[in-house]
Amino acid sequence: MNLPELTIQLPDWVGTYLETWPSVFPEVEDRMNFVVDLSRQNIDRETGGPFGAAVFDAGGRLIAPGVNRVIPQNCSILHAEMVAMALAQQALGRFDLSDGRRLDFELCTSTEPCAMCFGAVCWAGISRLVCGARKQDAESIGFDEGPKPENWIAALNHRGIEVITDICREKAAAVLKDYAASGAMIYNSGAFSV
Amino acid sequence: MNLPELTIQLPDWVGTYLETWPSVFPEVEDRMNFVVDLSRQNIDRETGGPFGAAVFDAGGRLIAPGVNRVIPQNCSILHAEMVAMALAQQALGRFDLSDGRRLDFELCTSTEPCAMCFGAVCWAGISRLVCGARKQDAESIGFDEGPKPENWIAALNHRGIEVITDICREKAAAVLKDYAASGAMIYNSGAFSV
Repeated sequence: MNLPELTIQLPDWVGTYLETWPSVFPEVEDRMNFVVDLSRQNIDRETGGPFGAAVFDAGGRLIAPGVNRVIPQNCSILHAEMVAMALAQQALGRFDLSDGRRLDFELCTSTEPCAMCFGAVCWAGISRLVCGARKQDAESIGFDEGPKPENWIAALNHRGIEVITDICREKAAAVLKDYAASGAMIYNSGAFSV
Repeated sequence: MNLPELTIQLPDWVGTYLETWPSVFPEVEDRMNFVVDLSRQNIDRETGGPFGAAVFDAGGRLIAPGVNRVIPQNCSILHAEMVAMALAQQALGRFDLSDGRRLDFELCTSTEPCAMCFGAVCWAGISRLVCGARKQDAESIGFDEGPKPENWIAALNHRGIEVITDICREKAAAVLKDYAASGAMIYNSGAFSV
């Protein structure tokens, strides 16, 4: 049996694209504006679904960006948040970004996390989650967010993870609407919707 | 900024190891016995945490194995289930294993999925989840399974995913106990336990 492997990679355009941005994003709106633009670029360049995310340190410095790579990489786990967290861990060389809660890191995501990404936030060493569009915005165009606990924000808070919602929500939701209007594939909507 | 990337890889020993097994595992106990042995090998060979998983097709043919790779690959998302599902998708060349619910695939895991892997099961095109050890077995040695919905089995059933639990539970739980007894790192137990 040949052993399969998978290299999680950002699209080729990301390197050049990052040169057009500062390396530090002082305000939460700056950071959200960046990840929403990542989601917009990802659909305009046809390199994945309409979702962007990034990990920042406590000073607002970008550690790693992420975009949805499900379709191009044939992998259902490659949501933008998963890519950003996995690549931030590679950038810093540790599976616990917080290094035993000594350091704070923020995951900023253009749409609130699905059931999988919600769980992954608990393990990555993230101390703040910032969300743009809401679950309802993603579901209104046919994406399935999955069975998160009803009290998912409280569950994260209980683990010491702050959650901030609705940052630039309208701008983030507009990318979802434009993706749907383009007729692009709403993957998973058929596979296990009920 | 240099763009980080991550190649999800099975340990080197897996290729040779697979030659000692058949390619088809007819009974569910055969499949669980294999993934529990994967979890055992993974700790004996010191290539990750005490967890194994695999994806099988409807005929019991192994599509891809997975072992926990969190510590060796510095990545908190590399639970055994995530590795198995991602590599099965690579092996078959599609992000939806079921290919639009035309085909059935089973994820067999030595310990019931954590909050992240639970969510990931919803997106991978899996139609049956088979679990060995229970959450309580993992938590009893200090691993954190995260905030899954209380009714997580019903939530999967509602999505058309069958769930079978307690297959070879004692044998699976014994690997967890032996890992703890060895003094190996129970990662994440400090980071966000409450």
